[in-house]
Amino acid sequence: MGLSNLYLVEPKQFPDPEADARATSAVDVLKKAKITSSLNEALAGTSFVVALSARQRDIGPVIAAPRETVVRLIAEAEHGEVALVFGNETVGLSNDEILHCQAAVTIPTNPEFSSLNLGSAVQVLSYECRMAAFGERPPIVEQGVTPFASPAATHDEVEGLYAHLETVMTDTGFFNPEQPGRLLPKLRRLFGRVRLEKDEINILRGVLASTQVKTGHGRRK
Amino acid sequence: MGLSNLYLVEPKQFPDPEADARATSAVDVLKKAKITSSLNEALAGTSFVVALSARQRDIGPVIAAPRETVVRLIAEAEHGEVALVFGNETVGLSNDEILHCQAAVTIPTNPEFSSLNLGSAVQVLSYECRMAAFGERPPIVEQGVTPFASPAATHDEVEGLYAHLETVMTDTGFFNPEQPGRLLPKLRRLFGRVRLEKDEINILRGVLASTQVKTGHGRRK
Repeated sequence: MGLSNLYLVEPKQFPDPEADARATSAVDVLKKAKITSSLNEALAGTSFVVALSARQRDIGPVIAAPRETVVRLIAEAEHGEVALVFGNETVGLSNDEILHCQAAVTIPTNPEFSSLNLGSAVQVLSYECRMAAFGERPPIVEQGVTPFASPAATHDEVEGLYAHLETVMTDTGFFNPEQPGRLLPKLRRLFGRVRLEKDEINILRGVLASTQVKTGHGRRK
Repeated sequence: MGLSNLYLVEPKQFPDPEADARATSAVDVLKKAKITSSLNEALAGTSFVVALSARQRDIGPVIAAPRETVVRLIAEAEHGEVALVFGNETVGLSNDEILHCQAAVTIPTNPEFSSLNLGSAVQVLSYECRMAAFGERPPIVEQGVTPFASPAATHDEVEGLYAHLETVMTDTGFFNPEQPGRLLPKLRRLFGRVRLEKDEINILRGVLASTQVKTGHGRRK
């Protein structure tokens, strides 16, 4: 379908002769796959990430249809690196993994059956990517004015914001790590709905840092 | 994807344990597959038939895109039996077989690669069938989980957040009202992109208030 960058997070076996055999003419994609030890490592540098999920989680992005979401993914690809995230064949993605993604989609299936095979799901989303990339693009209205925008924040920059927020909230006592509740997932849910820009990360972290200086925690990073 | 009538024309081996294993939850479709000795026999009774073909034949239906053709297939299904026809994994359909079909489609792929695996191609066209048949309906069947959401924040609640942010940023010195620059508009631009919920306003103001208590500004509203 034209996708070429494959990341494998903690693969059980790689390389694997069976995988090579099944890849047939796309074996080059497999050969140059990058292996990472965590999802975060694989997503470093991305600015918009779509997860495949067979079910709605009680907290996390609202599950949308693949077609509309992939159209957005392709549009976002003009501003930064984007990614599709798939869980493994048996257990899919965890709630926490889904919360590292800005959007989630379910492929519509016959409700009497369980979810699709992983290969089938990857095929459908890759196909929608190709259709969105090379089909008709929504017309951009010429307005003569370019609205302000800064480059998209990368995944690691957004994770840095979350970590900074957690530190400040812990220092002030607003967040209790012993009884975390759903505070952190709710903040991920909020900021996950915006595709944050670098400039915005700088502002938010600047606000946080300025409160730290005042509270005497400024040195604690 | 909701398709249930499978015809196999002269299968090399059927039933086949490997096929059963790969079918996973759709093994019932395989179990009740009908075996025929010719394509004509399989197509008896159909009124509109779409073939998958990786290339245009010098005679035969003009190859079209799957999406538009499948929309027509679903429309035709209201008037009579319709079918999708796939060749086998290695040689595809013959020119003669294609000529038994009313339409032909190619799934767009990276031109540098050969055609899709059969299973992938079947997945894509089945998915397009489901989208064409049910596309107007919400994609997610009720799954018993309602994603977390709180009521939308009102305009004045959002304004309250901005005022609170401005107070805190002023107190910490991050914001200088004498030289405001574009800081406040940028924060409005950020939070304006999310439709904030009441719960989120409470969290963000809670974080702000907790820093105020620490900095000794807690009484200043």
